[in-house]
Amino acid sequence: MRTITRDHILACGGAIVHHKGYTATGLQEILQAAGVPKGSFYFYFKSKEDFGLALVEYYQNWFAEQVRPILKNTTLPPLERLAVFFRWFQQYFADEGYIKGCPIGNLIQEMGDVNPLFREKLNASLTNLIRFVTGLLEEAQTKGQLSDQVDAEAMAGFIISAWQGALIRMKAVAGPQPLDNFQTMVFEVLLATA
Amino acid sequence: MRTITRDHILACGGAIVHHKGYTATGLQEILQAAGVPKGSFYFYFKSKEDFGLALVEYYQNWFAEQVRPILKNTTLPPLERLAVFFRWFQQYFADEGYIKGCPIGNLIQEMGDVNPLFREKLNASLTNLIRFVTGLLEEAQTKGQLSDQVDAEAMAGFIISAWQGALIRMKAVAGPQPLDNFQTMVFEVLLATA
Repeated sequence: MRTITRDHILACGGAIVHHKGYTATGLQEILQAAGVPKGSFYFYFKSKEDFGLALVEYYQNWFAEQVRPILKNTTLPPLERLAVFFRWFQQYFADEGYIKGCPIGNLIQEMGDVNPLFREKLNASLTNLIRFVTGLLEEAQTKGQLSDQVDAEAMAGFIISAWQGALIRMKAVAGPQPLDNFQTMVFEVLLATA
Repeated sequence: MRTITRDHILACGGAIVHHKGYTATGLQEILQAAGVPKGSFYFYFKSKEDFGLALVEYYQNWFAEQVRPILKNTTLPPLERLAVFFRWFQQYFADEGYIKGCPIGNLIQEMGDVNPLFREKLNASLTNLIRFVTGLLEEAQTKGQLSDQVDAEAMAGFIISAWQGALIRMKAVAGPQPLDNFQTMVFEVLLATA
């Protein structure tokens, strides 16, 4: 029961923060959305900051769960798995109407400079993502599907930069073009010619 | 005098918005930073929104002015000019301590979904930047310094995505690595193998 209520508050509050940002989201809104009294919130979280920090992990776990079947599907070649991984997110943003962007990227933008606890947790989350992409690129190299000349870690960092930036451009155009551009440029140009 | 005061309010208020975001910046803070009474603000701007929209142009003009000497230096080959252009920004963020990020990208993140007036103005600004990069890539193609096979506009869009994302990652690590990675990957991998 304990975990269920905590996750329920994170899910309801997290949806608001994803849309409006952390600072703009009031505690009252979170309580209303979750349908819990203030006491419940403070039973699970010491402060709004504590809640925000827990949210970083919540977002990360939520996404990890969504894409787990893709990542486990080792019948697909590693670069194909990576392409399907990003296509899953493309579909997610299509369903959302090309708004909001990456909850982790948004929080970095908003909180990175002003709160070192947030920055470290968010950086760890992004580092995990880069490590995951690096792993797939290295697997592709082992299988001879990507040149050994490629610095897998540098390439993975660049791909994640391009993805985060594509999500910003997606919000600017309010449409799919920047995400389509990302997919074409990464899989038909960057990794194809590398 | 009129323009001087207006630009002064934009410069002082713009610095705060760049650091804290638009929503988190109060009118009172802008007035205090600029050292002007409320009446002066409303003489130049109909509302805080009007001020925010003017800020998009102010940021754009400020950056354009900083990098004009680089862009006018046509003795440099076009891809070299592009590299120097991004290196100028790298130095800017080094001087700032790897914080804040792109004021246009930040406002897209914060305002893109919630205010169509902001979104359109910010999108126009980003489109200008992509057009400028496209122009340099096309010039490189004309001069035989970049393959004709490259879709200059798609490549430019991807480079700007990667740049915006590199600035997010810069804020996450609070250091230069993502910007160095951008420079290496764009100029030694992406454009070198294309």
